Amino acid sequence: MKIAIVGSGALGLYYGGLLQRGGNEVHFLLRSDYEAIIRSGLTVHSINGDFHLPTVNGHKDPAEIGDVDLVLVGLKTFANSRFEELLTPLLAPRTQILTLQNGLGNEETLAELFGAERVIGGVAFLCSNRGEPGHVHHLAAGRVIIGEYLNSDQGRLESLSESFRSAGIDCRTTPDLKRTRWEKLVWNIPYNGLCALLQQSVDLLMMVPASRKLVRELMVEVIDAANLQGLTKPIPEGYADSMLDFTDGMGVYKPSMQIDREEGRELEIPAIFRTPLEYGRKQGIAMPRVEMLTALLEQCGVS
Amino acid sequence: MKIAIVGSGALGLYYGGLLQRGGNEVHFLLRSDYEAIIRSGLTVHSINGDFHLPTVNGHKDPAEIGDVDLVLVGLKTFANSRFEELLTPLLAPRTQILTLQNGLGNEETLAELFGAERVIGGVAFLCSNRGEPGHVHHLAAGRVIIGEYLNSDQGRLESLSESFRSAGIDCRTTPDLKRTRWEKLVWNIPYNGLCALLQQSVDLLMMVPASRKLVRELMVEVIDAANLQGLTKPIPEGYADSMLDFTDGMGVYKPSMQIDREEGRELEIPAIFRTPLEYGRKQGIAMPRVEMLTALLEQCGVS
Repeated sequence: MKIAIVGSGALGLYYGGLLQRGGNEVHFLLRSDYEAIIRSGLTVHSINGDFHLPTVNGHKDPAEIGDVDLVLVGLKTFANSRFEELLTPLLAPRTQILTLQNGLGNEETLAELFGAERVIGGVAFLCSNRGEPGHVHHLAAGRVIIGEYLNSDQGRLESLSESFRSAGIDCRTTPDLKRTRWEKLVWNIPYNGLCALLQQSVDLLMMVPASRKLVRELMVEVIDAANLQGLTKPIPEGYADSMLDFTDGMGVYKPSMQIDREEGRELEIPAIFRTPLEYGRKQGIAMPRVEMLTALLEQCGVS
Repeated sequence: MKIAIVGSGALGLYYGGLLQRGGNEVHFLLRSDYEAIIRSGLTVHSINGDFHLPTVNGHKDPAEIGDVDLVLVGLKTFANSRFEELLTPLLAPRTQILTLQNGLGNEETLAELFGAERVIGGVAFLCSNRGEPGHVHHLAAGRVIIGEYLNSDQGRLESLSESFRSAGIDCRTTPDLKRTRWEKLVWNIPYNGLCALLQQSVDLLMMVPASRKLVRELMVEVIDAANLQGLTKPIPEGYADSMLDFTDGMGVYKPSMQIDREEGRELEIPAIFRTPLEYGRKQGIAMPRVEMLTALLEQCGVS
């Protein structure tokens, strides 16, 4: 399979590296890592075993790549305004677009620009951070769950999932992408938000009972809003507890938004916070703690 | 009147300075400002006019002061464990104790240690900050509202208030100290909390609609809890709007807790947050945003 990775950050480099190692023709659209990767390839430091790819197809311009079978979108959502410029050269009628970005609204934007039929969404439960240029660190977890946005051909989805699995990616499919997206928000909203706000890794939140309680309360607000969105089956409140347990296993992990703030990048507040709040509001549900966290995060950018 | 100022911070130095200028025998219990004040006196930089007191009674040990007519307590509440050591040498049967400290629980502690009859409470709507040693800056407002804790002799209170007014302090009395304390919390909880958390002065909160909305929501939670505490009359919700207007007039003001955090001091979380939350909980009222803010502030101290 010929695959383009658009958004070669901690997520794109890791999955792209696995897909190339698994025998696919992978092309990475690169910015800051370009020189290092062209010169020395890509090194993946992983809890599942390190590996090095000495030769990597790195590009600065998507036109160099040409059309592909699959575009894997790992861009930060604040770069979604560049979709048209970055993806158009990669598309043929056969091309599928898989977005593994955070938050809500990404499939909608891609569908509007390029047609809903080719859009597949997914969430990654992946703890990874970028290292020095040309290096990516896989610290924990790694499961990808993918689902069709509108296309009802589950065969296509199973086939894509099988390709990922054969490259060593723990990939599953979901018949309810919306539910899966909201499940990911149950993690993203408290941890990305609180860790970015407080500039603390997840372990520090988990060890203080009042903060652990706050994390759970935020999770329950998200679950309650999710369950008004017409899911195929509700997310049980116990999902919050399983996410707390999952996070206990992560150790000293910094969520992406904390790193974005540390490095002075824009925060993914619209996709991860404002859009879910809006979806909640449309169904008449208030999310007071999520709204407070959102206001606090936005206020961090004020000076 | 012979007055001891215990807790000579931005509040104690300012009101103590006015009381001395007004003809009272004022003794300041000092720590960091001791050398500067003994050497060069006290300078008050005030929106109402600067003044300098070349000779000031400064002390490091309360035993040097002996007994007084009035002890004015301006200590940070986390120093309340030192009440016995600091106040005992100052007390004769006639001695009144006025606490202008933040939050809830100060009168209770003083009453338990020294007898409820002599305790008077008060709140100060004062914007002042310490400058270099021996200097205090009065930036805005300044009103003091005092009330009896248990003593029903309003004559004593009026007489004290009149002494303050004759020293140029805008002093009023309240027949309901509890209500006045909660009114002050309507300001202290959002502004001390959010400014300390975000390390931003009040003006930055006020200029962003989402933060301004959050400030008001926090205020309304405090008002709702206050109105379950058996006040003589309820605090109207419109009090929140008057506090927002009041704060608009402050400009670039840093609340004390923001400065405490900047300077690495302990934060007054028990008196300003945890005790009010507990009083609310006893009356069956949840204050979700106040509780979240409290957890976030406590988490700031975790590393």
